[in-house]
Amino acid sequence: MIVSRMSASGLASDLPEPPYYAVIFSSLRTAGEQGYGAMAERMVELARAQPGFLGVESVRDAAGLGITVSYWRDEESIAAWKRHAEHLVAQARGKRVWYEAYELRVARVERALGKRAAAP
Amino acid sequence: MIVSRMSASGLASDLPEPPYYAVIFSSLRTAGEQGYGAMAERMVELARAQPGFLGVESVRDAAGLGITVSYWRDEESIAAWKRHAEHLVAQARGKRVWYEAYELRVARVERALGKRAAAP
Repeated sequence: MIVSRMSASGLASDLPEPPYYAVIFSSLRTAGEQGYGAMAERMVELARAQPGFLGVESVRDAAGLGITVSYWRDEESIAAWKRHAEHLVAQARGKRVWYEAYELRVARVERALGKRAAAP
Repeated sequence: MIVSRMSASGLASDLPEPPYYAVIFSSLRTAGEQGYGAMAERMVELARAQPGFLGVESVRDAAGLGITVSYWRDEESIAAWKRHAEHLVAQARGKRVWYEAYELRVARVERALGKRAAAP
């Protein structure tokens, strides 16, 4: 069963207490769609189904600059997701076709706080 | 002297080798400008001038969902920036006026890799 962990707000606001891990992926898209949207959607769907997945936040602006932060229980979960066959194909295509440039950082979340929207 | 650490691409691509720290701030804006743009610009300008500041990446989409990741040399730099008088005013106003909801996470970056855009 896949339980969605992105709230309606787009913020990952129901994560467990730290420590956990974040993969910070900031990127600049190349021009043209080239199948990007469908792949991006599929990768989020697939990531949600992986063991250790905690949540994801993703924003891209009109200029093609994007930041996606995915949250994971531990480093093993991140390593397994990195090696996932379908994800490996997307990674290779991303490097070659979809991204002009990107930065990927793996970080250990040590503290978290937030303001939650009032329930509608 | 303030040295800009955001490249033309909007990616923080010239950071030192990890470990260093990331402050991941994801937020959902309230409706209306209410002085937000000027404050956001001023805060980035001010952050750049702080000891230990390494870089920043910031994206907000048309729906008002935004992610800003700022990078810092160590936890002390983050703590000092959090206590900065002008920043304290902005934090209070953000909580009260500008943000419907937000999540703030402090994380220790352990690994980084990237693809750099070809020089123009």
